[in-house]
Amino acid sequence: MRLSRGFVPTLKETPTEAQIASHRLMLRAGLVRQTSAGIYAWLPAGWRVLQNITRIVREEQDAAGAQEILMPTIQSADLWRLSGRYDAYGPEMLRIRDRHDREMLYGPTNEEMITDIFRQSVKSYRELPQNLYHIQWKFRDEVRPRFGVMRGREFLMKDAYSFAADYDGAVIEYRKMMLAYMRTFQRLGLKAIPMRADTGPIGGNLSHEFIILAPTGESQVYYDAAFERIDPASGEFSFDSESDLARFYERLTTPYAATDEEHDPAVWEGVAEKREGRGIEVGHIFYFGTKYSEPMGLTLAGPDGRPLVPHMGSYGIGVSRLVGAIIEASHDEAGIIWPDSVAPWKAALLNLKPGDSACDAICMEIYARHGGDLLYDDREDRAGVKFADADLMGHPWQIVVGPRGATNGRVELKRRASGERVELTLADALARIA
Amino acid sequence: MRLSRGFVPTLKETPTEAQIASHRLMLRAGLVRQTSAGIYAWLPAGWRVLQNITRIVREEQDAAGAQEILMPTIQSADLWRLSGRYDAYGPEMLRIRDRHDREMLYGPTNEEMITDIFRQSVKSYRELPQNLYHIQWKFRDEVRPRFGVMRGREFLMKDAYSFAADYDGAVIEYRKMMLAYMRTFQRLGLKAIPMRADTGPIGGNLSHEFIILAPTGESQVYYDAAFERIDPASGEFSFDSESDLARFYERLTTPYAATDEEHDPAVWEGVAEKREGRGIEVGHIFYFGTKYSEPMGLTLAGPDGRPLVPHMGSYGIGVSRLVGAIIEASHDEAGIIWPDSVAPWKAALLNLKPGDSACDAICMEIYARHGGDLLYDDREDRAGVKFADADLMGHPWQIVVGPRGATNGRVELKRRASGERVELTLADALARIA
Repeated sequence: MRLSRGFVPTLKETPTEAQIASHRLMLRAGLVRQTSAGIYAWLPAGWRVLQNITRIVREEQDAAGAQEILMPTIQSADLWRLSGRYDAYGPEMLRIRDRHDREMLYGPTNEEMITDIFRQSVKSYRELPQNLYHIQWKFRDEVRPRFGVMRGREFLMKDAYSFAADYDGAVIEYRKMMLAYMRTFQRLGLKAIPMRADTGPIGGNLSHEFIILAPTGESQVYYDAAFERIDPASGEFSFDSESDLARFYERLTTPYAATDEEHDPAVWEGVAEKREGRGIEVGHIFYFGTKYSEPMGLTLAGPDGRPLVPHMGSYGIGVSRLVGAIIEASHDEAGIIWPDSVAPWKAALLNLKPGDSACDAICMEIYARHGGDLLYDDREDRAGVKFADADLMGHPWQIVVGPRGATNGRVELKRRASGERVELTLADALARIA
Repeated sequence: MRLSRGFVPTLKETPTEAQIASHRLMLRAGLVRQTSAGIYAWLPAGWRVLQNITRIVREEQDAAGAQEILMPTIQSADLWRLSGRYDAYGPEMLRIRDRHDREMLYGPTNEEMITDIFRQSVKSYRELPQNLYHIQWKFRDEVRPRFGVMRGREFLMKDAYSFAADYDGAVIEYRKMMLAYMRTFQRLGLKAIPMRADTGPIGGNLSHEFIILAPTGESQVYYDAAFERIDPASGEFSFDSESDLARFYERLTTPYAATDEEHDPAVWEGVAEKREGRGIEVGHIFYFGTKYSEPMGLTLAGPDGRPLVPHMGSYGIGVSRLVGAIIEASHDEAGIIWPDSVAPWKAALLNLKPGDSACDAICMEIYARHGGDLLYDDREDRAGVKFADADLMGHPWQIVVGPRGATNGRVELKRRASGERVELTLADALARIA
């Protein structure tokens, strides 16, 4: 995209309403604009990041054998009465009456709806196990929305729902999601640690939340250095092998890990290699047995024809929250430092002297070849402005084309994360980025 | 996907609530399930179709220079008071009060919100023209939702909004969208005809709706055969050339075209090559000048420093409606006939005898190589059931593996649209599909 023609409204001033780094940087870098309290519009750069994260989440869900669907945002209150949650859910649920005065709601989660869809469609235990997921906007009417997209009201979530014949089958689905989550966060450039958690309003017997490490995170975390040696994408763990999944689960759940709320200094004492840091919750998984399937009448024909009530689990990732979380984990004084996998553009192309024929020619050659991956800063602005905006926006690479180098066919390549700069021929620079 | 493990719940019976072909077929082929009146969940096969359509719409918007963003579903009533539409809009608008009793609404369209975002971000005429689009769920609280996704309440729409310095600039944006729409519908396997239209609640001076031809369409259309000779993707028309756009516009708007409401028999008399058919509206574009920019205070610094109020247009495509419209345009007694570009899977792989070692071996070889594009019917079911389901689901190709052919390394390939069947070696069949 050519920046002179693009809708990338960066801000020089720090917006006063933003209390945390990611919120400030998302506004300043032109990723989002607030449209109401806790509700945001995603501008082109922010939308590209959100799409990149969505794609990685989707690929890992698919790899784990989950199937993508899309459930609507608006649900009937009647469904939630079947589970008893319509009254149990507090004022965070956005309740709506339609023109016929029917009670509806903007879904904060989908256990009831997926159970109802499954009940209409599946008749036999032979069709188990299944895991269905969607990536859809949710609404939680927070009293005080804050921290930008980290605690907004309308937010994008990936939620998956598994159905299995019994406890043992449900545990396999749970472990698959655990592996998928660890692979997902690793691809997003994050270090994630699963922690045993309360089940809260979802209910159930087994639950883990996934905390990613970020220096400005919301809670203190204590963990065993053993986590640093787990590579979920090593090929050592396959979704198709029950023993791999069991081994992975053990590796993930045996070493010590706790947030400050759950921290146990006596046990911590015995951990050989201690690590501490700050963390942000970005995922939460639940096994809850027949909590929804039973009251909602989801009964299949079991082996021997006896009725079988499936055991369920649900698995959430805060997709829009992750944009903020990644920035919290990866930024400096000058701005965002995007991991390559989620950056809106792979590189910024900085033309330091638009109108100079050598600069323009080199830039056009690069842009013609890699236009889709580049943000071409062709604005008639001072070099200092361009450098500052590129650092702020956090492109993994900057290709700097100035009049001196351009006449010799040379450009400067800067890696945002390390600050390393090298002067290269055009061909070498292109090869380096690709 | 393996059908035995997939969530593709086809129905043998025709659901009684469905009055039109696309609604019946979408339920029977397991594409969607209704979750409330006029609100649908998209199951894996339906979701894949919707994603394919979305991708094509997006590619053509991008090619026309529009930039993708995402605005939220929930909007503040205050924004709509600025334009005067909050009171003007009838009971089709879903009005909501949040926990602080603030008036909100589920957006049926986004003219107000985009004008507000643009006002916050753009200061100078130099940044014009721009066209911003999003593909987002909308809500219109229809009194009697019917015809499945063709007239649902929660529906997916692509809406674009252009900003230009004056009328002439706005007309160029309008024509770009016209070209993009014609290319989009052609790629979706549809024949579209633009018709001069009323501007309705959006307001404005110039408007066209896009009607696609379908034998079961909602209205009668009369048009000049000249439309059949226009190829928007021929390379003859470039988005970057004003004269191409003007020529394209003239080609599209000169020949006679009207729905029965607007039909003028006297003019029709003079059309040399007459065509008649049934049609479905799938897109609508508007130029409305300063109808929103002026009352909402969108003023930029113009040349010579004088204030400039941008001229705007908006451009909608009914993305979820298109799924129904494509089926109305392309089905037969046995089921759906998907155009290749939108089919959920390129081919069905029918194993007529699971358990037969030759059949299983050939199927596994095909599936291993093309798994992502195939729906592998590995169910232990009669051949007749598999044939019927494959016809119902409308895969462009069927690869039929039976025990007799399999022992000789041969399969049967059926083209759904023509019904043509040929027996081929495995290698030839694979080459033919790819």
